[in-house]
Amino acid sequence: MLPLLLAAVSILAAAAASAHHPHPLDPLSPAELTAVRAAVLASPLVPARPLTFHYVGLDEPDKPDVLSYAYGNSASSSRSAMPRRAFVIARAGGQSHELRVDVTDAAAPSVLGHAVHRGAGFPTLTLDEQFAAVALPPAHPPFVESVRRRGVDMADVLCAVFPVGWFGDLPAEERRVVKLLCFVAGATANFYARPLEGVTLVVDLDRMAIVGYRDRVLLPVPKAEGTDYRAGNAGPPYAGRAPAPGTVVQPEGRGFDIDGHFVRWANWEFHVGFDVRAGTVISLASIHDAEAGARRRVLYRGFVSEVFVPYMDPAEEWYYRTFLDAGEYGLGLWAFPLQPGADCPANAAYLDGYYAGQDGKPVENKNMICVFERYAGDVAWRHTEAGFPDRLITEVRPDVSLVVRMVVSCGNYDYILDWEFKTSGSIKFTVSLTGLLEVKGTAYTHADQIMEDAHGTLVAENTLAVYHDHYVTYHLDLDVDGTNNSFVKNTIATKRNEAGTPRRSYWTVRREVAETEADAQVDVNAAPADLLVINPNKRTRMGNEVGYRVVPGGATAASVLDDDDYPQRRASYCKKQVRVTPYSKAEKWAPGLYADQSTGDDGLAAWSERDRGIRNEDIVLWYTVGIHHIPYQDDFPVMPTVSDFGFLKTLKVKKLV
Amino acid sequence: MLPLLLAAVSILAAAAASAHHPHPLDPLSPAELTAVRAAVLASPLVPARPLTFHYVGLDEPDKPDVLSYAYGNSASSSRSAMPRRAFVIARAGGQSHELRVDVTDAAAPSVLGHAVHRGAGFPTLTLDEQFAAVALPPAHPPFVESVRRRGVDMADVLCAVFPVGWFGDLPAEERRVVKLLCFVAGATANFYARPLEGVTLVVDLDRMAIVGYRDRVLLPVPKAEGTDYRAGNAGPPYAGRAPAPGTVVQPEGRGFDIDGHFVRWANWEFHVGFDVRAGTVISLASIHDAEAGARRRVLYRGFVSEVFVPYMDPAEEWYYRTFLDAGEYGLGLWAFPLQPGADCPANAAYLDGYYAGQDGKPVENKNMICVFERYAGDVAWRHTEAGFPDRLITEVRPDVSLVVRMVVSCGNYDYILDWEFKTSGSIKFTVSLTGLLEVKGTAYTHADQIMEDAHGTLVAENTLAVYHDHYVTYHLDLDVDGTNNSFVKNTIATKRNEAGTPRRSYWTVRREVAETEADAQVDVNAAPADLLVINPNKRTRMGNEVGYRVVPGGATAASVLDDDDYPQRRASYCKKQVRVTPYSKAEKWAPGLYADQSTGDDGLAAWSERDRGIRNEDIVLWYTVGIHHIPYQDDFPVMPTVSDFGFLKTLKVKKLV
Repeated sequence: MLPLLLAAVSILAAAAASAHHPHPLDPLSPAELTAVRAAVLASPLVPARPLTFHYVGLDEPDKPDVLSYAYGNSASSSRSAMPRRAFVIARAGGQSHELRVDVTDAAAPSVLGHAVHRGAGFPTLTLDEQFAAVALPPAHPPFVESVRRRGVDMADVLCAVFPVGWFGDLPAEERRVVKLLCFVAGATANFYARPLEGVTLVVDLDRMAIVGYRDRVLLPVPKAEGTDYRAGNAGPPYAGRAPAPGTVVQPEGRGFDIDGHFVRWANWEFHVGFDVRAGTVISLASIHDAEAGARRRVLYRGFVSEVFVPYMDPAEEWYYRTFLDAGEYGLGLWAFPLQPGADCPANAAYLDGYYAGQDGKPVENKNMICVFERYAGDVAWRHTEAGFPDRLITEVRPDVSLVVRMVVSCGNYDYILDWEFKTSGSIKFTVSLTGLLEVKGTAYTHADQIMEDAHGTLVAENTLAVYHDHYVTYHLDLDVDGTNNSFVKNTIATKRNEAGTPRRSYWTVRREVAETEADAQVDVNAAPADLLVINPNKRTRMGNEVGYRVVPGGATAASVLDDDDYPQRRASYCKKQVRVTPYSKAEKWAPGLYADQSTGDDGLAAWSERDRGIRNEDIVLWYTVGIHHIPYQDDFPVMPTVSDFGFLKTLKVKKLV
Repeated sequence: MLPLLLAAVSILAAAAASAHHPHPLDPLSPAELTAVRAAVLASPLVPARPLTFHYVGLDEPDKPDVLSYAYGNSASSSRSAMPRRAFVIARAGGQSHELRVDVTDAAAPSVLGHAVHRGAGFPTLTLDEQFAAVALPPAHPPFVESVRRRGVDMADVLCAVFPVGWFGDLPAEERRVVKLLCFVAGATANFYARPLEGVTLVVDLDRMAIVGYRDRVLLPVPKAEGTDYRAGNAGPPYAGRAPAPGTVVQPEGRGFDIDGHFVRWANWEFHVGFDVRAGTVISLASIHDAEAGARRRVLYRGFVSEVFVPYMDPAEEWYYRTFLDAGEYGLGLWAFPLQPGADCPANAAYLDGYYAGQDGKPVENKNMICVFERYAGDVAWRHTEAGFPDRLITEVRPDVSLVVRMVVSCGNYDYILDWEFKTSGSIKFTVSLTGLLEVKGTAYTHADQIMEDAHGTLVAENTLAVYHDHYVTYHLDLDVDGTNNSFVKNTIATKRNEAGTPRRSYWTVRREVAETEADAQVDVNAAPADLLVINPNKRTRMGNEVGYRVVPGGATAASVLDDDDYPQRRASYCKKQVRVTPYSKAEKWAPGLYADQSTGDDGLAAWSERDRGIRNEDIVLWYTVGIHHIPYQDDFPVMPTVSDFGFLKTLKVKKLV
């Protein structure tokens, strides 16, 4: 165990050392977050109080400056002089304030700019205001009466916050409201399994007061029995005979180094950052080209931009459940400590994160990201050659990859989000879904009673698991071998054979280079095609393109909501799995900067309407992993993990053969 | 190391003990293969000589008998009395002979029946006849002249056998011929990298004579430089800085038992068989239902039925390259010993296989299948619940699965074929492709010279990697909770909201139970749908279906060849990824029993034209993993592994909640 312990100590030492000269993409440190808070609270630009912090994140330097810092020849003295700035969204006086704060000298922070957001939408909800909101119902007499009517003990009742979405109110709802839905969570760890169906509270968050109440329908509260998932409280397959224990042992220790936020492993080097909205942020990923003796750029920045989860029940308590988990809740905010040996294998290293709480003070998020070498028993490449008469040649390379993992438990669902780096140069980004279903109270106790569309599956007595989708949208700013890249579609096209041989048909490749954004909106379930991001300014010795291929996994669902439907307008980018935009520092969040109660007037689809040129430009690939989820019996009380992925497969970036 | 060694010894002991009373699905033992040979050679029914054995496999008892043996209450004395029979295809006198041989008493084997195959097609090629065929060219004067003209040393030239396919000859070609293509394989382990492009030999296999020769075009032979893949002969990523070594350690030993051909692990039990054509055969897979105290059936039999690999170049030397790897070459025949610690992790156990050589004598295939517990760092299920005000609940189960692996190196390509069993009840079958590209000699030395369709990618000087497809078709005889099952399509259908709430649209599920085979032919890239195999005679306590969901991975290509094209007619089942047929013991091989020079008149698509009833019947699901492969620079000289899979996800088979 000693080598692991030493490694952990050296990581902490490195982190401490690097704190003095942070990399320009490092997330804000606790000291910097404290300085941001001090500057904002001291600023005369936002005099209203209370002031609450909804987003505090790194306002990174402009991309050319970061690239010059990372890959340029500047001396280390000039490298340490990069400014450190924060972007802040705060609420005060019923307005959303945007501030840019310089914390290069954390002892003398200064507000560089201030603006009030005038358009639709509100910032991410804070944890504190959600805790405050869910504390309101027990003091609300109509709610006390509703609970009593259901024969439930108020001490067992807990509520949760549900964003209201946007449904055509013009002008957009000016009150920052959420709905509260409540559950009988006393007797089970399955918080969501026993809804007080039919009861809805509306809370004005800025006033922190209940402004709406409705008890529409009285339905039985599902039983607690059979809902728990904790060891000892669950039957098979959730408990039951366990397979033999197994552990990965690395006799020579880990093969990677963590230096501040930089991870170096095999031929890879990349920066692991953290954002309270996006969660893990991978930056400046590059590959060492041993033969060229050079480092070659791959990914300037990659992160999950949004997770859209629309439910498919039009009922009054359900129609608005069309979550934007990153923008409304914050993926980093809902990432909790990973369990060593369970969430990540024994050979994992852990990174902590820090974010600003509602009061602006730094909050530590321990063990929020893990990094480990994955020995899955796979094969990197192999060949057995039986064609030689005198010998059997077998050459095999076992596969080892490096995984960077975060788990986001945004309410009932758990998203395991992996970035996996391969020695071949490929990058696999995997979404694994597990956790609990969002269920609806019902009078049904057996499927045979269901005579009309129930919008879900009866998974237990009085318990419907409602149909829904998941769309996990990645922002992938590929800079393959340089900043300017192009998007290429290699479509498989059938040809009639005119060569005079007996074959009648074959396929060939129709190559299309996307000129503008419209050319690069791709439904991957339509015509078969390879999708590439290439560097048109670099060629291999043979004259082939250098680049990456986007390889979709099986989860390629696209939204089937009508185009005029409100949630669809807010997340209209979910109709195509692939989009490409020219890089813009401001275009990070697929549904727009203000996701809560957004109207779709900002965001990826709206930006793309300008149909900008993307050929041989600094481009960003947006890839959406999509799943239509019809729940089945097996998904209750806890869902066996379902994984899917996108894959960035190298065409040839490591060696210009 | 001692525990592992002990485990290996006990496996051998168990295998030896069970050899006396084989399970009715056990592959033929060496003694049984020897008895089959003796009976066939002694039979007066096939007097012609020479007689060559092309297929010798288990002729398993009828399914009801096997089920009764496996799950019935018969005493062990009656269980050991199950007959042992072989099905044989032999060539003699220019005919394909089918024989059924009883070897229940291996000391007195008897031929039960004999027939001569009259239709189109020929059996699998033997290794011996391929070795004999490739020995012919150096003695063929025109070939010697062709080699000389290319300035190549004959000592460096090796040839390989290529089936001729079928291209409309009516009646089907009566001569059993193959083409030979030759390579300069002296200076590189990459057998296929240096073709003598333009030179074709035709060999009559029954006469073992060259019956056709053509030297159509003179092209440069690609260089050997940069083609090797062996350690020390290759650059990165094939060699280069290695990640840290890691090994899975199981302190309590392996969690599975191998008893004869039965594997028992966690809640799973299944039989691992072997067939010279199919490779690994999984049978009688069942799950122990801890709460019901009963074993519940899942999969009667699963195996790879065919691997169709059509190339997309109409040139004279390429148009016929439309391989049926299982039927023409034999997946089990081309499965070579796995490399411990590389092909399979250190904690793997190995199974040997035996097949009949061309002379009928048993051939041992050491370490042909490995079985291991996979600790990949994945999570079986988890949840973190942050909704409780007083506590953070985190419950995580690390994932362990059981993998059964074979690697088939059928010429240039290597297929890693995994069956992965999950404690959740799910089964994942994964195809991983690696190995070498099939390349074409060309005059091109740079991509800029290519002005017309080259049908491939120039991966090295004078070397085109030709476009092609892979279709791996699984035969999955699911018997979920009993023999009779139904196939259900749950289609996602958009609805306009008429509930009066502000939402405008949602989706719901349109459930269709397939009545006949035509209803169950599914293009999985068309309308989004969940595909289920359910037992309509069993319900969960809630009234839900018990069954499995077929979850496609990303490799869902369907053939785009024209319907009237000959290779398409021979593998017409490749236009839909999913088909369902009623069980028939004779319907094992998707392109038909005789694949070599088959005409498509037998096989999966032809059988399905009868459009038989499949509702609440004993049904077989056929699932095809499909890939259009446009080679890229990165795939040369050896291909980094690309994996894809199908997934059988349990709806609920373990517990009738």
